[in-house]
Amino acid sequence: MTMTSDFSGWTESVQQRMETALARLLPAVTISPERLHQAMRYATLEGGKRVRPLLTFAAGALTDAAPARLEVAAAAVEMIHAYSLVHDDMPCMDNDVLRRGKPTVHVAYGESTALLVGDALQSRAFELLTQENLADSPDRQLAMVRILAEAAGSCGMAGGQAIDLAATGQTLGVEALEFMHRRKTGALIRAAVLLGAYCGTPFSAKQMAQLEVYADAIGLAFQVVDDVLDAQADSATLGKTAGKDAAQGKATYVTALGVAQAQTKAEDLRLQSHAAIASFGGASQRLAQLADFIVLRQF
Amino acid sequence: MTMTSDFSGWTESVQQRMETALARLLPAVTISPERLHQAMRYATLEGGKRVRPLLTFAAGALTDAAPARLEVAAAAVEMIHAYSLVHDDMPCMDNDVLRRGKPTVHVAYGESTALLVGDALQSRAFELLTQENLADSPDRQLAMVRILAEAAGSCGMAGGQAIDLAATGQTLGVEALEFMHRRKTGALIRAAVLLGAYCGTPFSAKQMAQLEVYADAIGLAFQVVDDVLDAQADSATLGKTAGKDAAQGKATYVTALGVAQAQTKAEDLRLQSHAAIASFGGASQRLAQLADFIVLRQF
Repeated sequence: MTMTSDFSGWTESVQQRMETALARLLPAVTISPERLHQAMRYATLEGGKRVRPLLTFAAGALTDAAPARLEVAAAAVEMIHAYSLVHDDMPCMDNDVLRRGKPTVHVAYGESTALLVGDALQSRAFELLTQENLADSPDRQLAMVRILAEAAGSCGMAGGQAIDLAATGQTLGVEALEFMHRRKTGALIRAAVLLGAYCGTPFSAKQMAQLEVYADAIGLAFQVVDDVLDAQADSATLGKTAGKDAAQGKATYVTALGVAQAQTKAEDLRLQSHAAIASFGGASQRLAQLADFIVLRQF
Repeated sequence: MTMTSDFSGWTESVQQRMETALARLLPAVTISPERLHQAMRYATLEGGKRVRPLLTFAAGALTDAAPARLEVAAAAVEMIHAYSLVHDDMPCMDNDVLRRGKPTVHVAYGESTALLVGDALQSRAFELLTQENLADSPDRQLAMVRILAEAAGSCGMAGGQAIDLAATGQTLGVEALEFMHRRKTGALIRAAVLLGAYCGTPFSAKQMAQLEVYADAIGLAFQVVDDVLDAQADSATLGKTAGKDAAQGKATYVTALGVAQAQTKAEDLRLQSHAAIASFGGASQRLAQLADFIVLRQF
């Protein structure tokens, strides 16, 4: 088996495991309010590449974390991600009608339900992180809640989104773009990585710092590549409405740097992420492969 | 000093303490994104009766909880409450323009910012509950996160809101109304009470069960009285748009029971709440007074 096929086999197994875990960890459609629960499942299941859960599992390999813990931590991160997509797609935000090839939640269920779906998914994410025995001590588990809350909040994802909205129609330099994207996309990707490590045996401060360098580099790389793909792809390949950034006058790495330089930046970040985890040896194989996957993907 | 003036002195001191605590625990307007942080503060500060924080402090008296812990726990509950008001007021929900005598957040800051204000307030609430030393052990503190997350989520407040929306224009019986309100309003009030007790010395299971009976009774009473006040009051007294329930065809205790029977129900619940905490003796004085305040208030 080549490393490539090994990697795709691993991603598929994690993706399948996550689908099962999410189906179990989301509220059942038989519980009231049924329609809200149906919409929460619609927003979260059968969708996406599950990049964040893959990162959680890959980071968990560094600390010998049990898969039963990792899937709950990864589900919490994925529910935060899913909630953010539901709210971002709403008419008062990006007003998007297509997501992962399906009608967006507010199109399928109405705006008020979409609002509540996002709200309830966020609550559910934090509830999940209080499940018994997700880390070696309750102290470490509380730290996991803190990491996810900071990543989701006004100095993380929600704050990045606010900066993005304010920047629409403006020209941003690369520094301002980075400031925005470290929050908008980077913060949750960072949390996905750190939470995976927290599920296992404690890391030294030095090891955690190395992992944070990795997480920050791929978090930024993810957004740079997203911007390049949005500028290049069509909707069928992307599974969502393409070219929206330019149409909405959004500041992106492509508008700031052009496609070629944005691609160079993504490659630099890929190499940085590899260097950051080199000292972990073989245990970091999946993290390295994921960095490659994030930068070299075509969708 | 009579008991009445003593009670109003106590509520004022807690309200002032909470204003200071919330001002400290909300993100500063000098931190990016400034406008989002300004709007989060606008949504939370200088407003409301702080009923939930009062309940947290009153329940904390039962377990000798330190005020420095109680104000953080109460702030977390209040931020969940504030986020729910911001989202509930949005055009796709109740479409309200007035709240606590001020323009609602989406009127003052725009819809997209209002959406993010609610989202970020929710994250901040959970972040607050991870502050060091909020309870006697990290285990108990994790339980506090769980209680708040369940109260906020799809089987709590957000779920109650979904049921309320679905019920608009329908006639609901008293049982269906209770099912809805135990979630929509009751769940967070219950969390406010329980979190206060969790900040102090551990309770027995029996004591906790008694406190839950109290919390459930006043949670329901709060909504019954709200419905009565909405049907009777004018906007100036209420500090928000009055008579909206009837105008929007909402199912309320007044539509189900009429004003007189709704008032009788509130009084029954007040007596139930008193009975539930009678065995705690003098330490439960504030809880008993709050039950009276909730049922007998005119605003």
